[in-house]
Amino acid sequence: MTDAHERAAVLAIGDEIVLGQKTNTNSVWLAERLASFGVMTVEHVSVEDDLERIRDAIARLARENVLVICTGGLGPTADDLARDALAAALGEPLLEDEAALADIRALLAARGRELTPAHRVQARRPASARTLPNAAGTAPGLHARVGGADVFCLPGPPAEMKPMFAAHVLPALRTPRGGAISTRLLQVCGLVESDTAQRLGGILDRSRNPTVGITVSRTIVTLRIRHRGPREDAPRALDDAERAIRERLGPLVFAVGESSLAGATLDLLLSRRQTVVAVESCTGGMIGAMFSDVPGSSGAFLGGWVTYSNAMKSREVAVPEDLIERHGAVSEPVARAMAEGGLIAGDADHALAVTGVAGPTGGSDAKPVGTVFIARSSRTDAAVETEVRRFQFPGSRDDVRERSAVTAMNMLRLRLLGVGVSPLAWQKIEPPAL
Amino acid sequence: MTDAHERAAVLAIGDEIVLGQKTNTNSVWLAERLASFGVMTVEHVSVEDDLERIRDAIARLARENVLVICTGGLGPTADDLARDALAAALGEPLLEDEAALADIRALLAARGRELTPAHRVQARRPASARTLPNAAGTAPGLHARVGGADVFCLPGPPAEMKPMFAAHVLPALRTPRGGAISTRLLQVCGLVESDTAQRLGGILDRSRNPTVGITVSRTIVTLRIRHRGPREDAPRALDDAERAIRERLGPLVFAVGESSLAGATLDLLLSRRQTVVAVESCTGGMIGAMFSDVPGSSGAFLGGWVTYSNAMKSREVAVPEDLIERHGAVSEPVARAMAEGGLIAGDADHALAVTGVAGPTGGSDAKPVGTVFIARSSRTDAAVETEVRRFQFPGSRDDVRERSAVTAMNMLRLRLLGVGVSPLAWQKIEPPAL
Repeated sequence: MTDAHERAAVLAIGDEIVLGQKTNTNSVWLAERLASFGVMTVEHVSVEDDLERIRDAIARLARENVLVICTGGLGPTADDLARDALAAALGEPLLEDEAALADIRALLAARGRELTPAHRVQARRPASARTLPNAAGTAPGLHARVGGADVFCLPGPPAEMKPMFAAHVLPALRTPRGGAISTRLLQVCGLVESDTAQRLGGILDRSRNPTVGITVSRTIVTLRIRHRGPREDAPRALDDAERAIRERLGPLVFAVGESSLAGATLDLLLSRRQTVVAVESCTGGMIGAMFSDVPGSSGAFLGGWVTYSNAMKSREVAVPEDLIERHGAVSEPVARAMAEGGLIAGDADHALAVTGVAGPTGGSDAKPVGTVFIARSSRTDAAVETEVRRFQFPGSRDDVRERSAVTAMNMLRLRLLGVGVSPLAWQKIEPPAL
Repeated sequence: MTDAHERAAVLAIGDEIVLGQKTNTNSVWLAERLASFGVMTVEHVSVEDDLERIRDAIARLARENVLVICTGGLGPTADDLARDALAAALGEPLLEDEAALADIRALLAARGRELTPAHRVQARRPASARTLPNAAGTAPGLHARVGGADVFCLPGPPAEMKPMFAAHVLPALRTPRGGAISTRLLQVCGLVESDTAQRLGGILDRSRNPTVGITVSRTIVTLRIRHRGPREDAPRALDDAERAIRERLGPLVFAVGESSLAGATLDLLLSRRQTVVAVESCTGGMIGAMFSDVPGSSGAFLGGWVTYSNAMKSREVAVPEDLIERHGAVSEPVARAMAEGGLIAGDADHALAVTGVAGPTGGSDAKPVGTVFIARSSRTDAAVETEVRRFQFPGSRDDVRERSAVTAMNMLRLRLLGVGVSPLAWQKIEPPAL
C-alpha cells in the first residue's frame, strides 16, 4: 500500500520563468487545486532549462515528497529537457511510445500539418514511465514512479496543463484519509499587524488545529484559518476559530472571503438604503475609484468631487475662501467644510472628505508629510453630524494616499455599525473595548 | 578573492505563497533586476513557514550558488521564521542587535507607538550576520555568509523589499566581468502588443545585440532594450536602438524609464502652463487618482467631478437632463456635454470626460459591456474644441475602467503633441502615419 499524497512539491521548468521574464502562474494554480483536495504543497521550485538542474530537482523533490508535479520543458525544441531529466533521474533510457506518436500524428493531421523530427521527440518517454494524452497540444505528459514518489510532467501552457491535471493527476491522487484541508479567510481593517497579533495571542499558536496565519498588505490585515482533518469536522472548527477571532477583533473584521472594504461598506449602505459622496483632495479620486470598482455600487455611491485646487474647494463644495486662508487647505476646519459642503451639494446621507500632505514635499513642522485630515459627515434626523480626525500616516506618497482612502471608508463603515470610536492603526487612539 | 556573483537563487518564504493563496511577485522582480546587472538567477524556491524546510532550503541553495536572496518570514509573529532558520543554517544562536533595536524604537516613536515584545523579536540576528536597516517598516533585513555564499534576507512586502534590495544588495553585488548588461526601458501607449511587434519587425530579433524585449500590462506596452558587452559601449548602442524604435512608433512612445503616462501628460501641460480637469462616470475617479499620483501634479491638475449618478451629471457639470433622457447616460452627446461642462465649471484649459458600461451587467445590444465614450474638450483662442470617441474595450470591469482612464489621458497627450488622429488600441482606426 503506497502512502497517501499528503504533501506535494511543484516544479516549474524554463529560463523565462527563472530569469523573471515571465510570471509562473502554474505553480500557484496547482497548489491551490491540490489544497482543495487536502494535499498540502510544501515547496515550489523553478529551475532553468538545464538538464542537470532539472534532474537534480526532480530527484530531490521525489526523495522529500510523495507527489511531484512538473510543468514545462515538454516542447519540441532543444531547450525542452523535462523528458531527458526524468529519464536521468530514473537512470533509464528514453524509448519512443507508439501510442503517443499516433496521437501526435492524428492531432497534426487534424491541423493539416505533417510530423517533423521535432514532433517525434515528443513521443519519447523513460522506459518505466507512461505517457499522458494531451487533447490540446502535441506534447504528451509523463507519469513515473521515482523512488516512492509519483512524478507527473505536464506541459507549460496553462491551457494544456489545466485539463491534463484534471484528466490524469486528479484520478491518480490518493488524498489523505481524514487529512483534508479547509480554509477560511477573514479581513481586518483598523489595526496594524503587530497589534492584531497581540490581540489574538494564543490563537496564532502554530501547533493548533485550525492554525491561523496572518499577513498584511498595507492597510488590510488578512487572517487565514486552516483546518486539517476530516472534511465533515471542518465547518464547525472554522466557525469556532472565526468566533474566537471575532471576540477579540469585533467589527474590525470587515469581511469573510475576498470582498473589499469598499464592498463591505457599500453593502451596509445598500441595506440601509443610504448614499455617500466623496470630496477628495490628496487622494485625488481614489475613494471614488475604490467605491466604483464594486459592481452595483451606483445604488449607494452617487459620486463626488476631486477638489485638488483651492478654487475647486470653494467653488464646488462651498469651502469659505477665508477658512482656507486662515487655517490652510490641510486643516480640521477645511476637512469639515469639505464634508459638509459635499453632503449638501450631493444631497447624500453621508460624505467623506480628505485633505492632507501626501508628500514627498509640501510638509512643514506643524504639518509634516503624512498629515491627513479625514472628515465624515452624516445626516441624522434634521441635523448634520460630522467627525473629523487627524492622522499621521507613514510611508511613501502612495502609502499615505491609499491609507487615507481606506481609513476614510473604514470610518464610515464603523459609523454605520454604530461603533462610537473609530479604531485607527496609525495614531495613538485606543481601539474600542469589545 | 571571492567569486563574482554569476549565478543566484531566490527563496520566498510563506504558507500563503506555497499553498497558492498568494502569487509571489518578489522572485520574478528580483530575478529581473539581477539579470539587468548580469547575474543569472538559476533557481526559485518557495517554502512554507516551517523552520526545518526554510533552514534546509537556505543551506542547500547556499551550497549550490554564490548568492541567495530570501524574502518573507521577517515579521513579528510566531510564523515568521527566517531569522531562526538562518541561524540554524549557520549553526549559531540569535542575539539582539542593539542598533536594529534602536532603529525599530525610533520608527515606532515616529509613528507614536511603543515597542512590544513582538517588535523586539525583529531586532534579533544570528551571531555572525549583520542587520540591514529598513526605512519603510520595522523588520530589518539580514546578511550573512553561509559557506561560500552571500545570503540576504529581505522582508516580504514589496514596498519594503524593493528599496532594501537597492540599498543593501546592489552595493554588495560582484557583477561578472566583461558581461555587463545595460538596459533601457521605453513605454508605449496606443497600440496592442501584436501591432507593436509588427511595426518593430526585425528589431525584435533575439540574436541581435542589443536585444529588444516586449511585454504588455493591460494598456501599456513596455520595450526593454538590453545590451550585453563592455559598459562603455552601452550608451551608444542603447541610443541607436531607441532611435530605431522611435522611427517606427513616433509619439506612441511616451516615456523612457519608469515614469507613468499621467506623468508624461502632466509634463506637457506644465511646460505649456495649461490645466486639466476630469469628469468621470464609469472610471469613478481613476483619472484623478492617476494624475494626483504624480508628485507636483497640482500645478496642472485642478481636480474634477465623479458624476456617477445622473443627478450629479446635471447638477455639477450642467449636462441637460433631457439629453440624458433622449440619448442615455452612455452616449456621445452626454460625454461631450460632460467635458464641455467641466471645462467651463473648472475654468480649465482641457477637460476629459468618460461615460461607459464597465460591466459586468448593464450592457445592451446597442451598447454592450465595454462600450465607452471618451471626450476631450480644449480651449482654443476664444472657442472650445471637443473630440468624442466611442470605444469597445475588451476584458473585465477592471480592464474596461483602466483602459478608459489611460486612453483618455493618451487622447489629451497626443492632442498636446499636435498629433491629429488619436491612435487607439481597441478600435479599427489606423494609427497615424509617421
